[in-house]
Formats: sequence, structure tokens, C-alpha cells
Amino acid sequence: MSTEETARPLEPSVQATELPKEASLASLPSESYPEIHQGASLLLALRLQDRPILLIGGGVVASSRLYFLLESGAHITLISPLPLDPSISHYISHPSTASQITHLSRPYAGRSDPVKVKDFDLVLTAIDDNDLSREVCEMCREERVMVNVADIPPQCDFYFGAQMRRGPLQILISTGGLGPRAGAMLRDLIVDALPDDIESSLEGVGALRRDLRERAPGVGGKGGKKRMEWMKAICDKWGLGQMKKFNDVTVRKRILDEGWEKGIVLGPEHLEKKGDDWTAIAGKVVGNMLALGMAAGFAIWLRAYNTAKR
Amino acid sequence: MSTEETARPLEPSVQATELPKEASLASLPSESYPEIHQGASLLLALRLQDRPILLIGGGVVASSRLYFLLESGAHITLISPLPLDPSISHYISHPSTASQITHLSRPYAGRSDPVKVKDFDLVLTAIDDNDLSREVCEMCREERVMVNVADIPPQCDFYFGAQMRRGPLQILISTGGLGPRAGAMLRDLIVDALPDDIESSLEGVGALRRDLRERAPGVGGKGGKKRMEWMKAICDKWGLGQMKKFNDVTVRKRILDEGWEKGIVLGPEHLEKKGDDWTAIAGKVVGNMLALGMAAGFAIWLRAYNTAKR
Repeated sequence: MSTEETARPLEPSVQATELPKEASLASLPSESYPEIHQGASLLLALRLQDRPILLIGGGVVASSRLYFLLESGAHITLISPLPLDPSISHYISHPSTASQITHLSRPYAGRSDPVKVKDFDLVLTAIDDNDLSREVCEMCREERVMVNVADIPPQCDFYFGAQMRRGPLQILISTGGLGPRAGAMLRDLIVDALPDDIESSLEGVGALRRDLRERAPGVGGKGGKKRMEWMKAICDKWGLGQMKKFNDVTVRKRILDEGWEKGIVLGPEHLEKKGDDWTAIAGKVVGNMLALGMAAGFAIWLRAYNTAKR
Repeated sequence: MSTEETARPLEPSVQATELPKEASLASLPSESYPEIHQGASLLLALRLQDRPILLIGGGVVASSRLYFLLESGAHITLISPLPLDPSISHYISHPSTASQITHLSRPYAGRSDPVKVKDFDLVLTAIDDNDLSREVCEMCREERVMVNVADIPPQCDFYFGAQMRRGPLQILISTGGLGPRAGAMLRDLIVDALPDDIESSLEGVGALRRDLRERAPGVGGKGGKKRMEWMKAICDKWGLGQMKKFNDVTVRKRILDEGWEKGIVLGPEHLEKKGDDWTAIAGKVVGNMLALGMAAGFAIWLRAYNTAKR
């Protein structure tokens, strides 16, 4: 996020420009700056905790909007006469989400409505009345409020695209309106390609960053850059598959004590050599002794048995 | 986008709820509506063509912001004293992007600055001065303008995450701030998993949708639903790999003439049976005849040769 998510190696239009992975724009010779291909959307992760959102409509489309808004922690003012889509009624009445929704059970009256678009951070309409949708859209443009008008793409300031969430991981796939279904198919393909325990890996690396920030606090500047570069090197060394080991508090402590404090980037192999491995060797020796003992015991018993038989 | 991108089968928190792929929230029995897990971001694709954006800063972080804003077609007011990051200077002076940027070569003066945050759709700061960043952030909150403050995540209304663009396809990967580097690694993993010619497939499906809309115009309602369901069935039938064939105007015409008009969903195998396949069979027959002829000719020659040798 902020610097740490974007000042890093930038990979613009993958197709248009084959920027080396580790290059930032600034480190390139000037003639090789990527050519700009307009027409992209700006993809954003919006933080909406407790923010006021206006949702006009109560059908199946409004229901899908409501779901995403509830997950973002927003406060939603939903204006729609009854009957509502059953899922909307469910969330309005459910104890865990009721406080997130204010439902006004009436049609929205456009310009003459006492509820004004300027009092909201986002406005979404999902109604069959195209004239009312257009009116809401105009009101939003005048007040500089971003609006999504279901079914009328040209009137939308933002789209949703195909989405997925898995714990802390969220992915948005946008086809620029060309193929919504193809976007959903790509989403399924991407979900299949994700490591099974990616949530655990992300939580692990999040825990390590949090511990690191406690040791080396402060925002931006030289310290921030050093922290960022060390974290980057650690991530590359461990890889997505092993990061889940950072969920172990003793592993984190060793990586920070023996690594960060000394300016070293410890890998998984380093951590296993000490302690853990010795225990493993000791365990193996004990196991072998036991097996040897049992074999010897059996031989003695066998000899005794054979002697007795004679 | 709008209805067609989100009223479709919704796949909320993949982990939390195993919704059947084809289910919408509305078709579920009420007790199985997915539980809401707050703390998500709202992932959006923002349309910014010709929209005014304020970018404060001229370093490497500002440079990465500028790149994304230019691709979105926004008009950027960039406030920063010299020297600028070389990539920023490049885009300010390059004929293809110069008109998208207004550069004010001076520091931003916060509240006393004649440039006011309320005149912009988004504000981004990427400066080392944390006090000024905080002041800008406060101004944005008062005016309800969404702001991103580089290096100070708690002050951000939105994050960028890891991104990629390939023609019409854009993907955003957000780790909720836990692991920016892990997000970039996931981005690389996803890029590897994408079909090679995905741009072509998306362009093909976009062309088919455009032709369909010309035959069956109108927004929303029953007609829109029918169109949406037919497009969905076509996508499922052809799959991501074959959609690129829609770039052929005669293929599109046949799918619409022989399919849409008759309420049928034609698959690739259907289209190949007529015309193309016959040509292929004819070609094969001709090829086989030729091979047979050559073999016969060789046999005759061999016989003649052997006879002559004797």
C-alpha cells in the first residue's frame, strides 16, 4: 500500500512494454519509458469503513452491490419500496449487519428527495427507471460524487468487474466492459492458480511486517526505505509457499534478531540449521538406538528360543 | 460492467462461503446467505477520462502514480518544485502526453495554496513532508475528496495494490496492506497463469457483444436480460481459448444469424461442420489422392528400374 505497494518495481502494460522486473520508471534510460495507452481504468482498493454510501434500488442487482458494501464496512442508506430482494431483507434484519444499513421504504424522488447525493461518498443506482437513473447521475456529476448506474455503462464513474476475496487477499478483474462473463471465467482460472494456503502466507508476512515496524518505527524516509528493501528481500527468499511459517512467533523473532538487526536476509534453510535440525538429528539418533536395541533384543530372544527348542 | 458484470453469479469470500457457482444471492435459501466479514476494501475500476486529478510530489513514487493516471486518460495537475524524477519530465515534455499534465513548478502551500482540493476528483500526495501530507489529508476529508497519502496508509482512502494491464484486461491484487511484495509475487503468478492470447479473446467477445447490441438495442429490462444470458451461454460454450475466433466478422455473423436470431447457442463444433469442414475434408481427399498417385508412380518407376537393372 502507498509507497510500499507502488514505488516498488512497476510493471505497466505487460504487453506494451517489457520492463525488466526490478526496474522502476526512474531507473530507465529516458527513451525507454513505456508509451502511454489511454483507455485504462484506474483500479483502486477503496477503504470505506463507516463511510456513508447511497444505494437506490432493492432488486437482485442492488443485492450484489449491498454485499460488497457490507464487506467493506460502509454504512449504507438503501432507498427502495417493498418488496425487497430476500437477501437484502436478510441483511437488514440480521443482528450482525442491521446497524450497517438504514432502509427507507419508499421510491427515491430524485432532485426533490430530502436525501441528497452530496452527503454520500459513493452513489449507486440499481433500478429499472432509466430516467430516474439519469437524473441521479446528473446530480452526482454536479456534486462531484462518484456514481455507478446499473445497466447504463456510459453513465458510470466506476465499474465492479469480476472479484474474489480470500481472507486478506482481494482480486479485481476488469475487461474494460468487453467481456463480463469472460472476466468471471478468468476469475475462476486465477482462483485455481492461487496457492491453497495463500491466506496463511499473507497473514504470516503481515505479522512479520508488523513486528518489524515495532522494532523500526517511523514513516517514510531512509528508515522506511531500508525496511521496505529488507522485507522485499525476505519475501523473495522465502517465496509465497513458505511465508506461512512467519505465523510462528519464534520464527519471526529469529528472523528479526539474527537477520534484521545484523542487516542479513535469513532464508528458511538458515533457520533450520540451528536448533530445529539438531533436535531432528538427536531424534534420529535416539530412534536408531531404539531400533538397534530392539533388534539386539530380538536376536537374543531368538537365540534363547532356539536353544530352548533343542 | 454494471448489471452484466455484477448481477451475474456472485462469488463472495471464496473461503468463507462455498456458494454454488451459478447461484445469485437472491436464489439462495435465506439461512445460507454468506456471512459478512468486514475489513475488505471495495475494489473498483474508476473511469477517469479527462477528469481532473491533483498529484503533489515529483519523485519516484509520484512517477508511478503519474503512470497509472496517464493510462486512465485523466488530466493531472502536478505540483512539485524541480528537480523532477526523469520519467515525470519525460511525460511532461512528450508530445503524446504533454496535454494531459499541467505542471506547477513550486511546492504546494496547503490551505493557503490557490489550488484547492475541492476542484479535483482525486488527490494524491507523494512527498517527504508528513505535516503537509496530513494537512492535505484533512482538507480532502472536509471536502469529501478521496485522497491517497503515500507512506501513511491510515490516511489513505484508497490503495493501489499490485496491478497489471494487458490490452483490455486489467487486474488488481490487494493484500489489504499485509504484504505488498507478496501481492507483486502473486501478480507474477497470475500473469503466468493467463492464456497467452487473452487480449485477443477479450477483443473477440467484445466485438460479438457490440454486434449483438446493434441487433438488439435497448438498456436493461427483459431484452437486456435475454441478451446477457445468451452471451453468458456463448462464452461458456466457446471457452476463453476459442473466443478469439469472434474477431472474424463472418464467424460473428453466423453466430448471430443462425444462433441469436433462432434462440440457439452455437458452439465452435457447429460452425465448423458447415463450409470450413467440407473444405477441410475436400482438401484431405485431394491430399490423399496426391500421395496415392505419388506412391503408385514411385512403385511403377521402381519396377521399371528393377526391370532395367536385370
